[in-house]
Amino acid sequence: MNRKIFLDESDIPTHWYNIVADMPNKPQPPINPQTGKPAGPDDLSPIFPMSLIQQEVSSERYIEIPDEVREVYKIWRPTPLYRATGLEKALDTPAKIYYKYEGVSPSGSHKPNTAVAQAYYNKQEGVKSIITETGAGQWGTALAFACSQFDVKCEVYMVRISYDQKPYRKIMMNTFGAEVYPSPSERTQAGRNILAEDPETSGSLGIAISEAIERAVQDDQTKYSLGSVLNHVLLHQTIIGQESLKQLEYAGDYPDVIIAPLGGGSNFAGICFPFLYNNFVNGEKTRYVAVEPASCPKLTQGEFLYDYGDSAGYTPLLPMFTLGHKFKPAAIHAGGLRYHGASVLCSQLLKDELIEAVALQQLECFEAGVTFAKTEGIISAPEATHAVAQVIREAKQAKVEGTEKTILFNMCGHGFVDMQAYEDYFAGKLNDHQFSDNELKEGLKDIIDMQPDL
Amino acid sequence: MNRKIFLDESDIPTHWYNIVADMPNKPQPPINPQTGKPAGPDDLSPIFPMSLIQQEVSSERYIEIPDEVREVYKIWRPTPLYRATGLEKALDTPAKIYYKYEGVSPSGSHKPNTAVAQAYYNKQEGVKSIITETGAGQWGTALAFACSQFDVKCEVYMVRISYDQKPYRKIMMNTFGAEVYPSPSERTQAGRNILAEDPETSGSLGIAISEAIERAVQDDQTKYSLGSVLNHVLLHQTIIGQESLKQLEYAGDYPDVIIAPLGGGSNFAGICFPFLYNNFVNGEKTRYVAVEPASCPKLTQGEFLYDYGDSAGYTPLLPMFTLGHKFKPAAIHAGGLRYHGASVLCSQLLKDELIEAVALQQLECFEAGVTFAKTEGIISAPEATHAVAQVIREAKQAKVEGTEKTILFNMCGHGFVDMQAYEDYFAGKLNDHQFSDNELKEGLKDIIDMQPDL
Repeated sequence: MNRKIFLDESDIPTHWYNIVADMPNKPQPPINPQTGKPAGPDDLSPIFPMSLIQQEVSSERYIEIPDEVREVYKIWRPTPLYRATGLEKALDTPAKIYYKYEGVSPSGSHKPNTAVAQAYYNKQEGVKSIITETGAGQWGTALAFACSQFDVKCEVYMVRISYDQKPYRKIMMNTFGAEVYPSPSERTQAGRNILAEDPETSGSLGIAISEAIERAVQDDQTKYSLGSVLNHVLLHQTIIGQESLKQLEYAGDYPDVIIAPLGGGSNFAGICFPFLYNNFVNGEKTRYVAVEPASCPKLTQGEFLYDYGDSAGYTPLLPMFTLGHKFKPAAIHAGGLRYHGASVLCSQLLKDELIEAVALQQLECFEAGVTFAKTEGIISAPEATHAVAQVIREAKQAKVEGTEKTILFNMCGHGFVDMQAYEDYFAGKLNDHQFSDNELKEGLKDIIDMQPDL
Repeated sequence: MNRKIFLDESDIPTHWYNIVADMPNKPQPPINPQTGKPAGPDDLSPIFPMSLIQQEVSSERYIEIPDEVREVYKIWRPTPLYRATGLEKALDTPAKIYYKYEGVSPSGSHKPNTAVAQAYYNKQEGVKSIITETGAGQWGTALAFACSQFDVKCEVYMVRISYDQKPYRKIMMNTFGAEVYPSPSERTQAGRNILAEDPETSGSLGIAISEAIERAVQDDQTKYSLGSVLNHVLLHQTIIGQESLKQLEYAGDYPDVIIAPLGGGSNFAGICFPFLYNNFVNGEKTRYVAVEPASCPKLTQGEFLYDYGDSAGYTPLLPMFTLGHKFKPAAIHAGGLRYHGASVLCSQLLKDELIEAVALQQLECFEAGVTFAKTEGIISAPEATHAVAQVIREAKQAKVEGTEKTILFNMCGHGFVDMQAYEDYFAGKLNDHQFSDNELKEGLKDIIDMQPDL
């Protein structure tokens, strides 16, 4: 039996799939917090190029992928689909387990799928420089790579604590030609203000976003870029699911359940949305399980409300499951999952009970990651271990039930640059996290009052 | 045009290719330094299982790969062959450049090709525990992964300075289930002796080998394993070249020149030997270029002599190009190339002028590595940048000559765990290295007197 299924480069999808076309309930519009009215393209044009804004608001089912983008995708795509024979054997489960492996990309995760598209459209519209923020560095690396391919300058504001503690990611960005600054920096007013108050601050994603946006609006040839949450970002990731569909067809299988970690929602959307189409249109009954960390449980314990996408409150208000934009998750190693809200599209689908969510503790996830390394040979990113842990739960359940369930999950990145997380796990330094009810309600208090009157 | 060529899992080679069968001059035998006579299987049986010893001395052209080994190879093999379209464009060269990418393996290099085979044969012969040494950690990671697949215990002695400075590799080994000890350790007499003399020693590969061998001979169920240099190790790597042959056939091409870095010789042998067969038997005129670091120039400035494989003098005497087993290379980041000698097989081929060698300075190599990252999206290991630098030289030469030369090289590993090397390069901390004639002669003085009388 084959352990993995490759596709030809000619099988790289020609179109991104826009789920908005098929959602039974369309997402509510973003709101301009100044006017209280729906935010339109003009609200976004200072920071994004027009072609991405058009994708952000599109309801077309399919959007063509430019040839230049597909040419860069060929560097690592199509990615392999694996049958997890080693893991199945170790679990002695009747379930069939498949995973899509996005860790073969230049930056080691699914992020370049959208970074390449964003760099291309910016270049097309004459943008000379793209600014972004990055937490642990995965997104910054992806954008740095993408910009190197289209000869666009790339400037990254990296949360200071990560800049100091995770130097490898910064060096990777430098190697792809990007400039990386610890945030807060002296390069922006926002940064200078924070540093004046607290010179020793460790920074935050909210501050880094503020700095990046401030830099991006300075001139017309500089734009901002975001690595998750927004509709166009989720759109670009749908090539993951489209490839998986074809690969499973070659394997003669179809998933009963699809599992992916959810931080902002882009890797979850990437693998699930093309299959959800078959639920909407072709009567398939596949389940979709988003896995979040117990330390940041917006899907399972947050509320569906309008909230800012960033902690500083610069973005339009977005309708989403949120813990409040000022919520501070515990400092877990799965940095990509430490986000207070979920993308508008994933939030609407969860509200409509078309997808499910589960929150897992990190010790179970790391244990699953170690099992996965030993059985499948891949050391997964801390984010990705959340999917593995849920897969193991489902596979054990299948054994109890004696059902030959087919499970698909998104192995969204490798952990080569995250080994400190495993070290802390082995050393017994990690703990599970319990919130008091109050802690979770606290973050929501501020935003309940600011709900727009629709 | 395709950027990369995949093969099916059914295309994983069924046999390793043993070049000894076709070499015009057979390699001279290893010598037992105590007796001065050729070393036989009995000299090796305390530390290696018999099936590997038989491969070490075999002159059969093809040796069958066990199904169990091929099953594990399926985790990452066949590896992709890339056409370096991005690099070609950047160089504006008429040359066609292909590279085999071994960085997709569980440990990120070609090393698991032999680690898996060695773990399998040890398991077959009842071995419960395999001991090895590792410098920077690439080999130890590969063996740790391989042992996890066959449920064999793995114990690694890691040179203390690497253990302290490169913690990620150690954690990777732990994740695959291996025990890792800084060397010298208190676990062996050899280690205790060194620590008694110098408690602050940073260790050396020679000391680590001594500790591993001392542990391995303690009982019959414990054996030793080596990651390069020996005939059976080179043999196992020939699957790289065999796959490349088939992939180039699909591309409708054949290499005029093949380039690979040479530390001990296993990645060079892996990609070159199956093509050399066509030089020997089918009249092909392909050139083979081994690239060594200027700081460890055994091929271009060493001598062909009998010498120990390790600095402590535990191994049989091997006929090879060497700088002397006590030679201390400069502390370059390409740790895998810091070895005083070259494998017996590669040395004999170089002596017979069937392969070529070139020594490159590290600044040129890192510059090439950065170009490669920006054009091809792969951040290569410092060792692998040596191949890229020579490829760039050959491609520029092809442009001068206006020839449509076909170049193949072995991209033997990624650099995700070696980012500090790039940081030091960007920070201007690295220098090129020049030896005085005396420095190079110094290392050879000791061994000229101990040449066996054959």
